[in-house]
Amino acid sequence: MSAAGSGLVERAANGDPRAVARLVTLVENGAPGLRELTAELVAHAGSAAVVGITGAPGVGKSTVTSALVSAYRAQDLRVGVLAVDPSSPFTGGALLGDRVRMQDHATDRGVFIRSMATRGHLGGLAWATPQAVRVLDAAGCDVVLVETVGVGQSEVDVAALADTTLVLLAPGMGDGVQAAKAGILEVGDVFVVNKADRDGADQVVRDLRSTVRLAERGPGDWRQPIVSTVAARGEGIDELVEAIAAHRTWAAGSGEAERRRVRRARDEIEAIAVTDLRRRFAGLHGDERLDDLARDVLAGELDPYAAAEKIVAAVS
Amino acid sequence: MSAAGSGLVERAANGDPRAVARLVTLVENGAPGLRELTAELVAHAGSAAVVGITGAPGVGKSTVTSALVSAYRAQDLRVGVLAVDPSSPFTGGALLGDRVRMQDHATDRGVFIRSMATRGHLGGLAWATPQAVRVLDAAGCDVVLVETVGVGQSEVDVAALADTTLVLLAPGMGDGVQAAKAGILEVGDVFVVNKADRDGADQVVRDLRSTVRLAERGPGDWRQPIVSTVAARGEGIDELVEAIAAHRTWAAGSGEAERRRVRRARDEIEAIAVTDLRRRFAGLHGDERLDDLARDVLAGELDPYAAAEKIVAAVS
Repeated sequence: MSAAGSGLVERAANGDPRAVARLVTLVENGAPGLRELTAELVAHAGSAAVVGITGAPGVGKSTVTSALVSAYRAQDLRVGVLAVDPSSPFTGGALLGDRVRMQDHATDRGVFIRSMATRGHLGGLAWATPQAVRVLDAAGCDVVLVETVGVGQSEVDVAALADTTLVLLAPGMGDGVQAAKAGILEVGDVFVVNKADRDGADQVVRDLRSTVRLAERGPGDWRQPIVSTVAARGEGIDELVEAIAAHRTWAAGSGEAERRRVRRARDEIEAIAVTDLRRRFAGLHGDERLDDLARDVLAGELDPYAAAEKIVAAVS
Repeated sequence: MSAAGSGLVERAANGDPRAVARLVTLVENGAPGLRELTAELVAHAGSAAVVGITGAPGVGKSTVTSALVSAYRAQDLRVGVLAVDPSSPFTGGALLGDRVRMQDHATDRGVFIRSMATRGHLGGLAWATPQAVRVLDAAGCDVVLVETVGVGQSEVDVAALADTTLVLLAPGMGDGVQAAKAGILEVGDVFVVNKADRDGADQVVRDLRSTVRLAERGPGDWRQPIVSTVAARGEGIDELVEAIAAHRTWAAGSGEAERRRVRRARDEIEAIAVTDLRRRFAGLHGDERLDDLARDVLAGELDPYAAAEKIVAAVS
C-alpha cells in the first residue's frame, strides 16, 4: 500500500467524501506512490457505468447532468459527477452556491461532484479524467457522469473514456450545422435534443433522424436513439435513463463494452509508457540536452526529425 | 527534396495558394516524405509574427480576426489565418460564403485562410497547428493569425505556439468570472474587450485592470495592455495592432521571444520522438501485444504501470 494513499481507498469505498476528494487530487497530480495507489484502485474499480455528456456551449449540459443525478438518486444509486467543462456551474466552489439545483446535490452524501482543472494539465483531459473516473468507481459510485464541452478534441476524449456518450443539441444553435457536422455519429451513443419546448426543436430532431438513418451500419450495430428533453423541468429524463440503460445492455451483449474497456486500458498503458520515456529524455542531462538540440534546430543546423532521432537513440 | 513536396515550397513561397493548401494538407496528414518537407520548410520559415486569438464562444473572435486581417492588408502585409475554432465562420467552405466580411478576404491573394480539423486528429491541435503555421510562414506570410476557441487545453496550446496571444472578452458573458478565472494572465499577452459599446464593458475592463494590477511581476516584465474594441465597426483595431507590435518589440528585447522559440522547438522534437516510440510499440508484435497487456490489466493480473514497464523495456 502506498504511503500517499494509505487507508484512503478503504475510506473512500466507505463513502467518506474527503477521502474521495483527496484521492482525486493525488491521481490528478501524479503524486509519488501513484503506482501503488493505482493498483489498489484498480482492485476496487470496474463496476461503475461511465456516462459522457457533451455538446456545444449553451445546450444545457449541466441541467441535463443535474436532472440525471436526481433520476439516479431516486433509484438509490450512488452518483459521481466530473465536470471538465470550464463553463459548467459545477465547476468551482464559488459558482456551485449560485445554483439551487446544484446545491440540492451538493449536500447529498450519495452524490460526489468534482470539477477538473483542464487548463495546462500535463497530458490534459486525456490523462487526468480517466484517473478521476477510477477513483469515483472505486469509491462505490454506480454511475459516473462526465460532463465536458463539445469542442474539438475534448469530445473525442470523453467518448474514449465513457461506456455511453450522450451528445446534446438544442434548437437555435445553428442546428442544421450541428446535426450535419462530421463525426457526431462516431462520438454519440445517444442523442439528446434539449430545450425541446423551443421553436426549431422538431427540425433538430428531423435533421438528426436523417443523419442517423443515413449512417452505414451492419446487422446488430447500435442505432442511436434521439431523446427529446426539457431538462430544466425534468421532462424526458426517464426516457433518457432508459436509453442509457438500453445502450449499456446492447454494449454488454455485443462485445462493444469489452472492446471499449480494452481500448481504454491500452490508452492508459501507452500514456504511462510515454510519460516514462519523456522523463528519461529529461533525465539524460537535465533539460539542457533538449534545449541544446532545440537551439540547433532554430539555427538551421539540424532538422527536428534528426534532433528527435538523437533523443530516441539516447533512451533506447 | 521530398517527392511529396517537390517544388511545392518554392511555389508556395511565390504566393501560389494551391501550393500552400496542398502543403498544409501534407503536413497535417503526416504524409510520407514529411521529414524532407519539414527540413525544406524550416529553411524558408522563421520570420512571420504568429498571433494567437482566443476567448470564450461568442466574444467575437472571428470578427476581431477579420478586422486584423483588414488592418494588416492596409499595411500591405501578407496575412495567414488558421481557424482551429469549430464554431468559426472561417471554418468550412460552405459557411465562408455566408459572411460578407470573410468573403472580402477570401478573394484577396494576399490572404490565406485555412481551417483546421481538430476533431480526432492524431495528437490534436498541439501537433497539426504548428506544422500549418510553419507552412504559412514559409509561404511568406508576414503575420499568421491563429484563431481558437478558449476552452481548456486549446487555449494553452495556442499560447504555446504564438509569439503574442490575444485573450478576448466581452460584456454579458459572465464577466467577473471570466476576468477572475485562474490562468488568464499566463495565457494572454494582450487583453481585448470586444463589443465595448455594450452595457457592462466598463466593468469587464475594470475587472481585468485589477487582475493585471495584482499579478506579480519583476522589473522589465510585460504588463498586459487592455484594448477595447468594437471589431464589427473596426473601432479600436489600430490600437490593437499597436499593442501587438509593442509586445513583439518587448519580447525581442527581453529574450522572451527567443525563450518561446526554443520551447516550441523542444516541444516539436519531443512530439516527433514520442510518435516514433509509439510506432515502435505498435511494431513490436503488431497491435496484439498491447491488447494482451490491456486484457491482463483488466483481469487484475497486472497493474497499468507494470504493463507500461514491459512496453518501455521492449523498445529500449
